[in-house]
Parts: sequence; structure tokens; C-alpha cells
Amino acid sequence: MKNLGSMDNRIITLTTDFGVSDPFVGIMKGVILGINPGITIVDLCHEVEPGNIVRASYVISSAIGFFPPNTIHVIVVDPGVGSNRKNILVKCGNSFFLSPDNGVLTFPLKNEKIDCVVEILNHEYFLKPVSATFHGRDIFSPVAAHLSLGKEPISFGKEMDFPVLLELPEPEVEKNGKITGTMVYRDRFGNMETNLVLPQAKEISRWKLCDDITENIPLCAYYASAKEGELSALVNSSGYIELFVKNGNAVEKFGMKEGRRVVLKKRN
Amino acid sequence: MKNLGSMDNRIITLTTDFGVSDPFVGIMKGVILGINPGITIVDLCHEVEPGNIVRASYVISSAIGFFPPNTIHVIVVDPGVGSNRKNILVKCGNSFFLSPDNGVLTFPLKNEKIDCVVEILNHEYFLKPVSATFHGRDIFSPVAAHLSLGKEPISFGKEMDFPVLLELPEPEVEKNGKITGTMVYRDRFGNMETNLVLPQAKEISRWKLCDDITENIPLCAYYASAKEGELSALVNSSGYIELFVKNGNAVEKFGMKEGRRVVLKKRN
Amino acid sequence: MKNLGSMDNRIITLTTDFGVSDPFVGIMKGVILGINPGITIVDLCHEVEPGNIVRASYVISSAIGFFPPNTIHVIVVDPGVGSNRKNILVKCGNSFFLSPDNGVLTFPLKNEKIDCVVEILNHEYFLKPVSATFHGRDIFSPVAAHLSLGKEPISFGKEMDFPVLLELPEPEVEKNGKITGTMVYRDRFGNMETNLVLPQAKEISRWKLCDDITENIPLCAYYASAKEGELSALVNSSGYIELFVKNGNAVEKFGMKEGRRVVLKKRN
Repeated sequence: MKNLGSMDNRIITLTTDFGVSDPFVGIMKGVILGINPGITIVDLCHEVEPGNIVRASYVISSAIGFFPPNTIHVIVVDPGVGSNRKNILVKCGNSFFLSPDNGVLTFPLKNEKIDCVVEILNHEYFLKPVSATFHGRDIFSPVAAHLSLGKEPISFGKEMDFPVLLELPEPEVEKNGKITGTMVYRDRFGNMETNLVLPQAKEISRWKLCDDITENIPLCAYYASAKEGELSALVNSSGYIELFVKNGNAVEKFGMKEGRRVVLKKRN
Repeated sequence: MKNLGSMDNRIITLTTDFGVSDPFVGIMKGVILGINPGITIVDLCHEVEPGNIVRASYVISSAIGFFPPNTIHVIVVDPGVGSNRKNILVKCGNSFFLSPDNGVLTFPLKNEKIDCVVEILNHEYFLKPVSATFHGRDIFSPVAAHLSLGKEPISFGKEMDFPVLLELPEPEVEKNGKITGTMVYRDRFGNMETNLVLPQAKEISRWKLCDDITENIPLCAYYASAKEGELSALVNSSGYIELFVKNGNAVEKFGMKEGRRVVLKKRN
Repeated sequence: MKNLGSMDNRIITLTTDFGVSDPFVGIMKGVILGINPGITIVDLCHEVEPGNIVRASYVISSAIGFFPPNTIHVIVVDPGVGSNRKNILVKCGNSFFLSPDNGVLTFPLKNEKIDCVVEILNHEYFLKPVSATFHGRDIFSPVAAHLSLGKEPISFGKEMDFPVLLELPEPEVEKNGKITGTMVYRDRFGNMETNLVLPQAKEISRWKLCDDITENIPLCAYYASAKEGELSALVNSSGYIELFVKNGNAVEKFGMKEGRRVVLKKRN
């Protein structure tokens, strides 16, 4: 039986835009397991659209709260690979993050106290030669594996001040109580998450939602309680207001897109 | 080396309609591993079409015989999540099942002696707060993890009589020996499994198959023994008669669909 | 903590054309874990197009160098399953390979010293009955699991001389220094790998690349250093020249296909 207190119970999660039709993700696992054979690796998502940093940031942000302390999250959505963008290691709360310094950590780090940011520079831990196109394999995988064995973050490079953070749209509250938000994430089911939370979580019935498609989107308690075919909303499992169509695909049916506005109003 | 007799060698399998473009499956694994770090988790299938309970039931049914005793199968295809449908834990033969009580266990349980059915009610084992949209994360994952640590099924709720079982088409045998069956499962290769078995497994040559597309579908011993491009059949690895096109996609080429009839006749 | 010297730290990788919409891969894992519960299984790729032996061969070949010694690579792209094609076990360098003997090992074995080739014949290690359509489940999985427990290769059958190897296009060098190669592998990003390597790796600037689409494809150091929208090339992470479009999909934009010629010329 494993010793639950030892370092080898750390988990490494992988989030990339590598897809699953190439061996890239499997190769990263080979590198990691060659260094730490006892590690548990969890695929978070590899179907981020190529180069979509915001979506990757959202994906990792929605997951971190559900992993045990000291989990190492490796995020490789990296259109700038090989350029002078930095590779970083961040410790924040109970989690470690390894990623290019391109803003992909915006969601998980925003409003959090960052413990330390290290620019990854120590070639001792890299595969050799380091390619100009696959730092996931040559830098992030071996560094994650050595970190999972208990190496201190500072071993991998030198401390720096702040990672790159993107400016993301925040909900705007007007004096009349109207709150304007943004569609931020579509899922496999064609549901669209917004960046809106209900001002008073239990007062669903006192609010209504609208966008430029429809004037009155009913707020429901769960998916099956909506009317079939009707654009509806609920508070989803991340605590945000989400648009959906019962037994349907809201994104396709209403041509929704990330970035579009949505408005929450008090009922009269 | 692991102690092969201990509880931590149990396996948890996951079958969902969550797809792989969102972090939902990875999040479930985070919850499970936080409770039982030594558990082995196997993805059975996450590409069940949203809400397709029958397909999910078929997927799990074709897999259970190939997992070791005490494997825990978690199936989350759950359009009714958050409504008053129940969450259940079933022990049947050597396997445990965790799922919504919506009929998704029909295939694995039919014709089997069910040892016990427990309605999952004990909040002590749930994440808090329990969301109305993601019981895979908040209920099924933590319950599966605690079950894998050796907790008794009854710890999670109270015993109930029967799970919901769907009525599924059975082959019909006529007096003249004609057997009418149904297409039940298309696979990635465009092969279509039927619910027909050969009356005498070794007597392939004495039977012919037809559907409304073609009068005479030859029964072959293996894929490569068919004629290129021709609709053919064989006894597949689950023991059922399967329609295929050698080096082609039968489902696309002949517009096949689950639910369509297919007829097995004795040769004259 | 695991004993790093023991057999149960071997890794099994899986490469198939089974896709992820069916439970086939999960079933193979159930069989393997039933025999060796401590084994680590890594998915290399399951999205090989049905029956595309050359692509599967390429996938496995690009990965083997990144796995630890004694890793067992199982490759099941097997349109001839059930026919008289052989099942083989190959030991080559630090790796073991299990596959049908249909040429799928061409890339990993070419130019390598093969230690031994065993035709897999010993029914003692197979599931029973062996189906005619799913040797991945009935033969390769249990044999891989027993091999991972330390069984000698020869236990599984009898030694044979050579596996089937495919003839693959090799670059042709002309007297004037022109080198003609072939497009061999497109990836998820729409990049196209060729079988060309630079004669002097550091002399990028002294060479130019052309194909029948464009007369002069610039050779860049990394993706982000190319001009947006322009067909460009670089030396990729496998050491081969790769065609790409910065922030775009070169394969789609220029209608590229595996098998097409590409020419490397010295600059004047």
C-alpha cells in the first residue's frame, strides 16, 4: 500500500491544445513517468482550440478547487513556444502551476494571493536538446515530474514579480440594479456559461435574464425543470448563471458566442 | 509492491456523456483521488451522445465482463440531474454500479440476479453544497471513492426494491425459423451490432441475413474474409451478429440506424 | 512507496484505431489490470484513422524514445484481424512491441537492431474463446499484462525471423544538392511533417524549401517567428522539417496531403 504522506501521492494534471489524434500528450506522460514512476497523471482537457489561451485559463480555473493540496497543474497552450516568452512555475494557495507566461493563468490567479512565481531557467532539469516547438515535452514535463518528487520551486530558476495576466470583462452593475455580463464558456452540451452570479443566490424568482435574442429568459432550478426548446437559465455547478435549452443545444440553436453580452434585471 | 488483497486495488470505471472538450471528467477524477489516492480509474467512454441512456447502457454492459471482481462502474448520463429522479448504488454479481435511476443500468442488470439496490441519500459523503447540475462531481465521485475504500453499500443510503429498467426490443422467432432482430449499436468503424445471436454458433453457412436494403447478407468468419464494398455480417466479439463493410463504413454507406429491423433466415 | 526496481513499474502504452466513442480501449485496460493491477497504462493515440497502418507506425515511432526502458508498446491497427496474419512480440533496444504482423512496426524498427521476434501462439495466455474480431482484447492485452509481470518473450510462442516491414519513401539527394522528400504526417494543428532533415542542422539560412504550391518556403527558428498566414517551415521536435502557417492550419489552407513531394534546395 502506498504511503499516503509521501510526495509520490502528488497529482499532475495536464491541460493542452494538443488534441488526442497525435501522440503529444502520451509523450509528455512518458517523460513524466520516466522521472517519477509512482505519479498519478490526470487529463483535464486536451481539446482546447489551438492557441485559445482564455478557454484554457477557464478550464483550469473551474477544476483546481476539486483536486487535493499540492496538485501540480501543467497548462500548455502555447502559440509563442520557442520565442522569448517565459516559462513559469507559480505556487498559489494549495496548487502549483506550470505554463508559458502568456496569460493562461489569469482565471486561476485572479483575486488570489500568489505565493511565488519562478521563471523556469535551470537546464539541468530539461530534456536535451530543448526543441523550439515542444516545451511541453522538453521543459514542462520533466520540471513537473521533479517538482512532484519534492524539489523546491526555486530550484528550477529565479524568482520574478508577476505573471502576465489578461484583462477580462467583469460584470457591470448599474444604479437601477441592471447587471451586464458576458458569455464566457460553451460546453459540450451547448450550454453557455456567463460571468454573472445571482446577487442573492436564493432569489432566483426575483430576477430575469435577457440578451439580444430574447427579452425574458426564465431562471430555473435545474435543467429538467425548463420548457423543452426554450432558452432558459440556471445557476450552474460553478456558481455562475448558465444559458441552456432543455434536451437541446442552446449555442447552436441561438448562435451564441463567447464575448456576447447578457443582462440580468430585477423583475418589477 | 501493492498488496493485491487490499481494497485499494479496486478499479473505478467512468462512463458519461461529458465528452472530452470540457474538464468535467478530470474534475470527477480530482474528487475521487482526493479521497482514495491509490485508486485506479479507467475511462470507459465519455462520447455517449448527450442524454442517450440506451447507448450508455449498452457500452457499460459490453465491458463489465472484462473487469476484475469488485470493480465500481460509475455511469453518468443524466438528463434529469437535479430533479426528483433517484441516485442509486447497485451490487450485482461481481460488480458495483453507481448511476442515476433512469434506466441506464438496463443492459447490465437484465437477466442478472441483483444483490442489492441502495438509494444514495447520505449527505455525509457528498461534496457541499450539492449542485443541481453536476451530481457526477458532487455525489457519484465521492461515493464511488468511499465505496472503493471498503465502505458497505448500505452506508450510503437506504435499500430499495428495483431500479428503473427500460423495455428493449427482443428478437422474435417465428414458426418457420425466421428470426427478426434489431440494430442496436454502431461503432467507430461504422459497423452495426444487432441483437441477434446465431441459433447454432458454428452453423454460419446454414443461415442468411437480410434487411430492407439487401436480400442476402453473407455471414463471414472475420472482417477480411468479406468482399470489399459488400454489406456483410459476422459474429462479433460480444457474440452478436454484426453488419459491416470490409475496409468501409457500413453505417454511412447504407444509412443504417439503431432501431431498424434485420431478419435472420434459414437457407433452403 | 513503490519498489522502483520491480517489474510492476513497467509501462504499457496503447496505440489503436479504436477511437474514444466505444468502450474498446477501456475493455483492454480492464483485461490488463485484471492480470497486473499495479501496471501503469498510457494512451498514446486511439484516433488513428481506421486501418491506417502507416500513420500508426509513425505515431509509435515518434514516442518510443521518451518512455523508460522496458516499456511495452501495444499497437492494434489491424484490418486483417482473424485472418492468417500473425500476431507478434518484438524486443528491440529498450522497448517491447506487441502488434499484428502487418507492417505497423516499420518506423520504430527500421535501422534498428532487432533482438527477437516471437510469433504469439500460446493460448494459455489468451482470453477464451478468442474472438475473430477483437485480438486487442483477447490476445494483445493479456499477453502484454503477463509480459509486464516479467514473463520471457519466448513464453508466448515461437521465435521467427523477420516481421513484415513496409517500403516507405526515402529522401532522394541529387548531384546538384537538391533533396526531394515526402510529406509524411499532419498533426492536429494542421502542420505537416516531411521526411527531410537539414543536412547541416544549424545552417537554416543557407537552404530553401519548395513544393508545387510555392517556390520559396522560408525556414524559421520557431512558429511565432514566421509571417502570419504565410506557408513556412521549421525543424520540428522530432528533428524533421515541418511545414506550417503561423496561427493557422497549413494542411487545410494549402490542401496538403501525406505522400506529396517537397524539395529542399541550396540558396544561391
